[in-house]
Amino acid sequence: MAQLYDRVALIGLGLIAGSMFHAIKRAGLAGEVVGYARSAETRDVAREIGLCDRVVDSAAEAVEGADLVMLCVPVGAMGAVAAEVAPALKQGALVSDVGSTKVAVIEAVAPHLPEGVHFIPAHPLAGTEQSGPRSGFAELFDNLWCLFTPLEGTDPDVLARYKSLWNGMGANVDEMDAPHHDLVLAVTSHTPHLIAYTMVGVADDLQRVTDSEVVKYSAAGFRDFTRIAASDPTMWRDVFLSNKEATLEILGRFTEELFALQRAIRTGDGDHLHDYFTRTRAVRRGIIDAGQDTDMPNFGRNAK
Amino acid sequence: MAQLYDRVALIGLGLIAGSMFHAIKRAGLAGEVVGYARSAETRDVAREIGLCDRVVDSAAEAVEGADLVMLCVPVGAMGAVAAEVAPALKQGALVSDVGSTKVAVIEAVAPHLPEGVHFIPAHPLAGTEQSGPRSGFAELFDNLWCLFTPLEGTDPDVLARYKSLWNGMGANVDEMDAPHHDLVLAVTSHTPHLIAYTMVGVADDLQRVTDSEVVKYSAAGFRDFTRIAASDPTMWRDVFLSNKEATLEILGRFTEELFALQRAIRTGDGDHLHDYFTRTRAVRRGIIDAGQDTDMPNFGRNAK
Ligand SMILES: NC(=O)c1ccc[n+]([C@@H]2O[C@H](COP(=O)([O-])OP(=O)(O)OC[C@H]3O[C@@H](n4cnc5c(N)ncnc54)[C@H](OP(=O)(O)O)[C@@H]3O)[C@@H](O)[C@H]2O)c1
Ligand SMILES: NC(=O)c1ccc[n+]([C@@H]2O[C@H](COP(=O)([O-])OP(=O)(O)OC[C@H]3O[C@@H](n4cnc5c(N)ncnc54)[C@H](OP(=O)(O)O)[C@@H]3O)[C@@H](O)[C@H]2O)c1
Repeated sequence: MAQLYDRVALIGLGLIAGSMFHAIKRAGLAGEVVGYARSAETRDVAREIGLCDRVVDSAAEAVEGADLVMLCVPVGAMGAVAAEVAPALKQGALVSDVGSTKVAVIEAVAPHLPEGVHFIPAHPLAGTEQSGPRSGFAELFDNLWCLFTPLEGTDPDVLARYKSLWNGMGANVDEMDAPHHDLVLAVTSHTPHLIAYTMVGVADDLQRVTDSEVVKYSAAGFRDFTRIAASDPTMWRDVFLSNKEATLEILGRFTEELFALQRAIRTGDGDHLHDYFTRTRAVRRGIIDAGQDTDMPNFGRNAK
Repeated sequence: MAQLYDRVALIGLGLIAGSMFHAIKRAGLAGEVVGYARSAETRDVAREIGLCDRVVDSAAEAVEGADLVMLCVPVGAMGAVAAEVAPALKQGALVSDVGSTKVAVIEAVAPHLPEGVHFIPAHPLAGTEQSGPRSGFAELFDNLWCLFTPLEGTDPDVLARYKSLWNGMGANVDEMDAPHHDLVLAVTSHTPHLIAYTMVGVADDLQRVTDSEVVKYSAAGFRDFTRIAASDPTMWRDVFLSNKEATLEILGRFTEELFALQRAIRTGDGDHLHDYFTRTRAVRRGIIDAGQDTDMPNFGRNAK
């Protein structure tokens, strides 16, 4: 693919930034990728493993002369980071972020950006349970989706070029408004994560079922939940605090349905259970047909 | 390994029976494996793909002369199947089952078995979201656990030989009493399944989030839930109906914790959320260290 940006700055060097770096290099999408992370430790690791062409010691230095500035920090830190880089941004530069919620990030970031700088919020729907500078890899975004929530008046050429970047990194792209994004993600991501965290917490708490039993016998289903519940605590704290309303709405729906199923169990209403469990199979089929998950049983765990 | 049984009968020819057949053959644990399933369709498929050395047309015929009779049907069908085979059982034979709940299966099966026949309930903690005669494979039980809930007075030699069978099929074995089994499984399997079914049902229901959005954007976490919620509806209906008490107890605990987290979101208590999400990471670590799941990110989905 053709080079799309002369210089890209990655602020925050974790899973998403690391994967972006590798994906950008795989396709030759940028001339130079400059990186910065808050801690000296992360910057040292990044230098050691060759994450970024150049790792610098301040956010302002990283964005100097950059055509594209990517904010890749937890959503609760986006505002402060935007304020920090704002004075050093190049005229005409594009600022974007990869935050998992969008309404709150727009509110936090937009006010800091100077005239003559573009802002297009983005969210790649791709991740793993791992984090930090060593966790990224070039294939993370392949065939998955990156959602844009452009503000009114976004320059179509700037948007088109930015879309090409994500396509070049392997992703499909789509647009929606920020509130709708936050609702969709409350369903497909935020509520499932909260539920998984809760279930693992409950299992961990139970006194009669010792840790070792929960661990030993986890292959009966529970282990899937523990993968999700091993995700970064800071990232997820910020997600829930910044997508309160939609998460609470979907949680309300979830609880309602759960109570109905609980009641069916209590009253022995096998038909209600069977009908419900039949309906949900079709969703899985759709996801596999759409290429959004492997069709191998157990996610291919048993493949040797 | 040495041959442990001259003739094994598999009643029900789905995921578990199919995997048992392949695992028995892999290690040469039985002289002959005879199979039977309720529907002519399943028996035809079994014959076509060579599932069992011999597929017969009645349960009574299958158990004739068998040293080990495995009941591999949904837990709600165990009693009727036991009644059906009882008159044809060989003296000294061992009857076992692979049902996901144990108290109810013991109550349903034990009364039908004649004097001189042994009964040892078992439950392999291994499965996939698939079912039917084509879904089994030899590696399913490898390094996972099979739990036995032997009744009082179980013959130690019969038990030892039966344990060797599961070891020979790749599993580790452990013993516990049936009520404790049902409680442990309510935590590590039954409640997680109910929750996953519920979440997928909620997503499927929402009118503003169309099917296609739920499917397209599933990689943000939701797709893991859909795998679990694609499991067989009949099997799971029977599990919940036959493990009511323990499931309802764990569901109560789950709801309590969920409400506490919901409240933390509503009140903006980030510390509570962060602490909770930190604690659950350790459980994942334990599961990986115990060899009960892959340590590859995303269950190795991204491995090509
Ligand atoms: N992980 C996912 O599944 C996923 C998917 C899509 C989008 N996202 C979003 O992508 C963003 C980054 O996530 P990630 O998974 O890449 O996280 P990560 O691996 O944990 O990396 C986070 C980076 O942000 C830095 N950081 C943390 N707190 C900060 C603060 N208060 N101020 C400045 N920098 C801070 C960290 O610096 P140090 O290393 O120096 O601590 C680290 O470099 C988040 O907004 C998240 O919501 C994540
Ligand atoms: N799947 C798992 O993850 C898992 C794990 C551990 C234990 N188990 C337990 O193992 C047992 C079998 O599960 P599976 O996954 O192997 O199921 P499966 O693949 O759905 O196969 C079930 C078998 O049982 C037969 N069957 C269904 N209803 C019956 C009835 N009312 N009377 C007689 N036979 C009937 C079916 O016959 P047709 O094919 O003719 O319909 C089929 O051969 C269940 O008790 C389950 O709780 C399952």
